[in-house]
Amino acid sequence: MRPPELVLFPSALQTTPEKARFAPIWVEALGQVQGFVVENLRASRRFLRALDREFPIDTLAWVEQQPDGSYDMEAIRRAWAEGNSWGLLSDAGYPAVGDPGAVVVAAAHTAGVRVRVLPGSCSFLLALAGSGLGGQNFAFRGYVPIEAAERSRILKAWEQESRRIGQTQICMDTPYRNGALWKALLDNLAPQTRLSYALDLEGEYEMIQTRTVAEWRKAVALSWAKLPCVFTFAA
Amino acid sequence: MRPPELVLFPSALQTTPEKARFAPIWVEALGQVQGFVVENLRASRRFLRALDREFPIDTLAWVEQQPDGSYDMEAIRRAWAEGNSWGLLSDAGYPAVGDPGAVVVAAAHTAGVRVRVLPGSCSFLLALAGSGLGGQNFAFRGYVPIEAAERSRILKAWEQESRRIGQTQICMDTPYRNGALWKALLDNLAPQTRLSYALDLEGEYEMIQTRTVAEWRKAVALSWAKLPCVFTFAA
Repeated sequence: MRPPELVLFPSALQTTPEKARFAPIWVEALGQVQGFVVENLRASRRFLRALDREFPIDTLAWVEQQPDGSYDMEAIRRAWAEGNSWGLLSDAGYPAVGDPGAVVVAAAHTAGVRVRVLPGSCSFLLALAGSGLGGQNFAFRGYVPIEAAERSRILKAWEQESRRIGQTQICMDTPYRNGALWKALLDNLAPQTRLSYALDLEGEYEMIQTRTVAEWRKAVALSWAKLPCVFTFAA
Repeated sequence: MRPPELVLFPSALQTTPEKARFAPIWVEALGQVQGFVVENLRASRRFLRALDREFPIDTLAWVEQQPDGSYDMEAIRRAWAEGNSWGLLSDAGYPAVGDPGAVVVAAAHTAGVRVRVLPGSCSFLLALAGSGLGGQNFAFRGYVPIEAAERSRILKAWEQESRRIGQTQICMDTPYRNGALWKALLDNLAPQTRLSYALDLEGEYEMIQTRTVAEWRKAVALSWAKLPCVFTFAA
């Protein structure tokens, strides 16, 4: 018998997943877990059924993240104690990277349960690789503050850090604020700073483009159409 | 005809690649490029032939990174001008992330050539996800300085930054110095800082473990056996 594991399954970046983006080892691992810890139960079940119409949802155990961000850790630990393996799945991309799940991974380490990771897609990583801005040294900052003065202050601080130590900066916002964040980036960053956007990764409108801020200021306004977008820049 | 593209192919983390780790879309894309820009010609050809014994090495164009880190950009731009697509491949994991290739991606953006990214494995990302240390805010620092005083200073500076803004730190060294870096981490970080190592990812000896520095100091010495390792920590 395999000892119990926590297996991290990177999920799709889009609501309708393409089977061809999942490696055979990922598909095979689906059959090696007895339950799933998920960010969102409905979304995860829909995702797994979209990949495989016969996916045995009813015979698996499920633990969903609670509204306060917590999990029923007792149920997870009990399953490990019984020798069962769990999968960890978030709504888009890698669990525990820019997405919930780190506390579940931490609990696995504490319980001495082996943690296994699988290949897949992570939007920040794809955005960084595709930007051409250099990935020897980078920081993922997550969501940018909304309040104008604080947003301005922090974008300049990240740009300063990028200039000081050659660190590429990665950030984002919720899709409906993409236009506002883009404007803030163009208003606050220096003309020679290189700025990239990665729109709708793995989706129909996927587009990665990189220019200097000065060049972007001369470009026609972009239309974001409420699609997910990751922004990267390097001074 | 497809317009010319630069397609980023994440490669294997191990010298002997497992086919099952590559998604069908990745395999399909191999047939959509007319040439490859590679970090190392021999290693890349061996890798592609290990995945497919019939891989048409001789009918493809190849551009290898030069010892000074540059590429024959003229050959690449000429191929794009002729409507040909290129793949970008580095020796391990994602090209242009902790690996060479960013200048080629930047050239694609300048030439107006579409940049496409594919799913796969990136050792830092797998190490971060598997650490359970939190991936909402993280910095990849690359190689740690070797000189003792500077190494000590910089590890403390990264820990301080982790404490200040909740940023998980990711770093590494060449395999034969893993033991020395591990000792420096235990000597310089605070007892309550959580420290994780991800050894030999996707290899026979794969192991990810996370403890506090205080706990690690009490543990038996680890044997690194010159395997690749990524270290993450969070204050």
